[in-house]
This record gives sequence, structure tokens and C-alpha cells, in this order.
Amino acid sequence: MASIRVALGDRSYDIEVGAGLIGDPGRYRPHLMGRKAALVSNAVVAPLYLERVSRALKSAGAEVVEVVLPDGEEKKTWQTLNLVFDALLAAQCDRHTTIVALGGGVVGDIAGFAAAVYQRGIPFIQVPTTLLAQVDSSVGGKTAVNHPLGKNMIGAFHQPRVVLADVATLETLPVRELRAGLAEVIKHGAIRDPVFFDWLEANLDRLLAREPDALVHAVVRSCEIKGEIVGQDERETGLRAILNFGHTFGHAIESGLGYGQWVHGEAVGAGMVMAADLSARTGMISGAQATRIRDLVARAGLPVAGPSGLTADRYLELMAVDKKAAAGKIRFVLLEKPGSAVVRADIPERDVRATLRACTAA
Amino acid sequence: MASIRVALGDRSYDIEVGAGLIGDPGRYRPHLMGRKAALVSNAVVAPLYLERVSRALKSAGAEVVEVVLPDGEEKKTWQTLNLVFDALLAAQCDRHTTIVALGGGVVGDIAGFAAAVYQRGIPFIQVPTTLLAQVDSSVGGKTAVNHPLGKNMIGAFHQPRVVLADVATLETLPVRELRAGLAEVIKHGAIRDPVFFDWLEANLDRLLAREPDALVHAVVRSCEIKGEIVGQDERETGLRAILNFGHTFGHAIESGLGYGQWVHGEAVGAGMVMAADLSARTGMISGAQATRIRDLVARAGLPVAGPSGLTADRYLELMAVDKKAAAGKIRFVLLEKPGSAVVRADIPERDVRATLRACTAA
Repeated sequence: MASIRVALGDRSYDIEVGAGLIGDPGRYRPHLMGRKAALVSNAVVAPLYLERVSRALKSAGAEVVEVVLPDGEEKKTWQTLNLVFDALLAAQCDRHTTIVALGGGVVGDIAGFAAAVYQRGIPFIQVPTTLLAQVDSSVGGKTAVNHPLGKNMIGAFHQPRVVLADVATLETLPVRELRAGLAEVIKHGAIRDPVFFDWLEANLDRLLAREPDALVHAVVRSCEIKGEIVGQDERETGLRAILNFGHTFGHAIESGLGYGQWVHGEAVGAGMVMAADLSARTGMISGAQATRIRDLVARAGLPVAGPSGLTADRYLELMAVDKKAAAGKIRFVLLEKPGSAVVRADIPERDVRATLRACTAA
Repeated sequence: MASIRVALGDRSYDIEVGAGLIGDPGRYRPHLMGRKAALVSNAVVAPLYLERVSRALKSAGAEVVEVVLPDGEEKKTWQTLNLVFDALLAAQCDRHTTIVALGGGVVGDIAGFAAAVYQRGIPFIQVPTTLLAQVDSSVGGKTAVNHPLGKNMIGAFHQPRVVLADVATLETLPVRELRAGLAEVIKHGAIRDPVFFDWLEANLDRLLAREPDALVHAVVRSCEIKGEIVGQDERETGLRAILNFGHTFGHAIESGLGYGQWVHGEAVGAGMVMAADLSARTGMISGAQATRIRDLVARAGLPVAGPSGLTADRYLELMAVDKKAAAGKIRFVLLEKPGSAVVRADIPERDVRATLRACTAA
């Protein structure tokens, strides 16, 4: 088992990565504050893993309150959040109760936000069961629910006590979600670590074959990279923005198509190809370097071009209202060289339009 | 104008106390981060002060989004909170928008919680217009909404950028609310400052007559005391619990009668008399000292005994489920001497029952 420390002062915590962690009571015991644990999962993950985690928590001494939420991004709402509060209050959970989030990014976001605001904040443990959640959403303390007028509009920064990333749970992950998770893995190499990017080029097929050793390495290195960035900029006032590489274009794709058409990782895949193209177009990296990113995204089975229906005008409109846009300026995360990203708010619109022309499906 | 610093590291802020502050653009200008300010008030306070504050904010350079909520503790809900989010999103408020909470404790709690979680946290300014809010709820960063199964169950710690306590707004305060605010003022003297308690005995009539100088002193000293305690224990893991003097009994009264029968300050008034009686009964203070508290509460026009319908068994049951009860033990905030409070979880039930017998209306 590997362990990565996320250094955030008195909110520091470990990300533990390995195969078979979720059934081990010893992983939970040091982090249970009070007598009760509220195990929050969803209708898809619960039949697979809830019983195993519940048994481990009981062996660790907890009285377990189980909460099974409906599945899906469209359920990431106030209403679903309230199901957690209802269950916690019905079971008389006090402020020493620990929430355990078992599932993908949506479960982690809802359960984490519930932990952030239940009785003004209670401890929580992340047990991510998708690759996307293991390498991205469970790390960094961002929690949220959606509002009808915008994604992740209501939320909090709330750090977990520990993250247990069990790669054995990825065996049951649908291939489309495995690929979506790889988008964020590739992103970490692209923005921060050329050696890891090289490793991904050499080992992508092992990841697609779900070889545990390869998965552990990809998760560990991703968490190290994201953890280090978050440790330097917990509340996203600066550096953390580079984690949005591929996301400015990606969010426009998700939003323009209507959420749920493309999954997040697919939109980020195409978005990274666009961001790399734009980086090359403005002379920051070479065309060959942009092509390496495009090729790796393609090998991961992710789209390398935006959907045909979305016009450049619509992209520009959607990117301008993205909440990362400061004072009306569209901020792009671009590569200044392979393995190093910067935020730029001074990109000429004609270059953005050229990139969109080059990277949109005919 | 007096200014009190609440020392909380990078979350430190000033409480400014005086008459006529709310119309002064200079009070707001240093704390407006972005272009927009969302001015949140309620249907009772808005007709009195909204226009004046809105004008000051505009003079300070802000584009103002006005949000008027329904009035009343029973409206301190998710649904009302969502009205704030709806308005912020409809006006395309970004994460640099500043929320200005204009009103009593309920407005401050809702608007403050909205600020805590809108786009994972935006700045806010408290402009409390009730004595209770000026001396208590606007200080310390506690924000929350109620859940059908419990008061203040969903919330966050979120510190304001500044608190503007304008005693001129107390001229329009109903006398029942003025008295309710005095309960918390008396509490601050009782738990922390015997000199202030003496001053209150000498000046209570001036406060009831709303003399600005007296009000300023009472608000300033209360904020100093509460600010100092909060500065030492922001998240209520220890010392801050002494601010609950009178509240363990008080919450049982509010909850037992059904919320809204007695206002919070009335329940706290009777609760403080009970807590003082219990302190004397367990030999911590003299009977004469307990009587001084009772007399001051009576002079403030607050009840000095619990309602006749509530039995001792019901009090004990309600106090056991109070969220301040740790591991099933009822924790009482008692006086070890006038001006000094301690938390005790070892009080024999027979003493509690004796206090309830002595302090319940026939």
C-alpha cells in the first residue's frame, strides 16, 4: 500500500492507495471520531461494496447508519443532499459522527458537502470507487451540489480525514468511466510532470487492461501532483487553476451539449486537445508536442475533437460565463512546455476561433 | 465610532459600533471585493433601511442586487436560502460578489450561510439591526438554517469581513426584541466581566430608554467579550461553550413550548436564572449572587421562571438531545463566581430537578 500526504496544516490528511483496502477495519479506525459512522453510497455502488465497508466499519467499532442515494449527476441536488441530513437526524447523529463517502465523484461531492455543513461541519472519509474520483474529485476538499442555474454552484472546501483509494474497486467500473478517469490522469502529466507523461505513453495499455500495479502507480502519481498543488493553494486563488487544463473548453462542451451527453472526462479529453492546440498556435509549445497529447487522448479512447453541433460563438459565450472567468476575461490554462502549465487571460480571440475550427468534428 | 478587532488570523475582522453607520459609503468601500454586492434583507427591515444601505453601497461603487426574504424564524429554511441562490445566479453574481446581510439574527444566519456556500464561499458583511444580532449572532461567524428535525442543524463557520453595528437602527426595534437582546448582554457580564455586570445594574434603565451612549457601551463591551472568546475558540471545541450560559435550559424551554412561543432571549433570561440557581445550589456561588442575576433579568423585563406547562422530566429529555450534549451527558454552563463561567458535566440530577422546581411558574 502507498500513502500520500496532502499537507494542509491542521487539515492535512493521507491518501492511501492499494488493492483491497476497503474491507480493512484498520484503515478506518484511526479516523472515527465518535461512536457513529454514516455510510453514504448510491444505488449502483451499494450492491457491490456497501456490505463490505459496513462490516469493516463495525469491526472498527462504529455504529453504522447506511444512506443509499439515487445515482447520477442529475441527482447532485439539494433534494438528494437533504436525504443525507434526514437520515443523520433521524439516527440522532451528533457532531462527532463521521461520514464515509463510498462511490464516485457525485457521492463524494454530496456526502462531503453534507459533512461540511451538518451541524456546521463533521469529519468525513472518502472511499472513491471510480478512477475519476480516485485521481481527482476525492482529492482537494472541493464539495458541492448543483443548482438548476449552474453546476457546483453551492458547496464548500472541506478536507477529508483520509482518502482510501482501492484500485480493486475499479474492476467493476464500466470502460467508459475508466477512460473518463484517464483524462484527468493524462492531465496531471501534461501540466506538471513530463516523466509521468512519458510513463503514461509507455503504459497506457496496461491501464486500460486494469493491471493493479499500473493503476496504483497512476493513482499515486496523480494524487501526489494534485495534492502538492492543492497544498500550495487550498482555496483556488492562484496555482490551483492549472488543474483546469482542458476544462475551460470541456465545460463549454458539457454545458453546450446539455449535461449527460458526454461524460466529464470525455469533454476534458477533447478540451485538452484544444488547449494543447491553442498552446501551439500561440507559439508556446511545438506542434509535435501538441500532437503527443492528442495521440495519448486518442489511445485512451477519448474524443479528440468537439461535437459537430457546437459553434465557435457558442463556445465563446459559454466560456465567458464559466465561473473561472474573472471580470469577463476568458482565462485559459495553456502549456508553456510539456509538463508545465500557466494561466493566460490575454489570448486573442482569433487564435481561439482557429483552434475551435481545427478541433471540431466535421 | 468604536471599533473592536476579532482576532482570527487571516479571518480577522472589525466590529464597528456607532450611530448612523449604515448610510456611510466609507464603511463598506474597503470590504467590497468585486463589482457586485448582494444586499439581503427581510420584509420587515427592508422598508426601514434597505434604501439607505443600497444607496451607500452604490456610492461605494457597487452594483447592488437586492434580495428581500420573508421574515421570521420559521422561514430560516433551505427554501428561503434558495431564494438567495436564485437571485445571485439570476444576476450572474460570481465568486467576487460581496453579500451584505441587513437585519436581525435570522437574516444574518441565512445570508451568512449563503455566503459560506455560494460558489464555495464568498465575502460578506454583517449589518445587524437588532440588539440581539449586534451583541451576539453577528459576532463569531456561526451561520445556519433550520431543519424540520432541529434548529441550526445545517450551517457553517464563516467570518464576515466587517460588522457594522449601528445603534440608531435600534430606535425602531420592538420593545420585546430590545429586552430579548438584553438577555445576551447580561449573559456577557455574568460569564466574563463582573465590572460590566455592575455597570449593567447601574445603567439598565438607560438601555431600556435606548440612550445611544449606553447602547454603544453595551454593544461594544458585549462584542469585546464575545470576540475575545471566539478568537480563542473559533470552532467551539472548548471555551466557546461558556457562551451557552442559560442556553441549555433556554433551548429546552423554546423546544418544549414549540418555537415562537417565547423568543430566544426570553428563554435565555429564564435559563440564566436557572443556571445561576443551579450554580448556587451546587455551592459554586452564593444565593445572594444568584439573586443579583435574577433581579437584573427581571428588571430587563424578561421571565425569571420557566413556563408552567413544562415538567422536569421533559426538560431532562430535551436537554439530553441538545447538540451540546456530549456522549449523552448533559453539560451545564455554571458560574464559579460572578463574572466567571465553567462547563460542568457532573451535576447530580437531583440538583437539576430542585432548580427546575424552584424556577418554574406555578
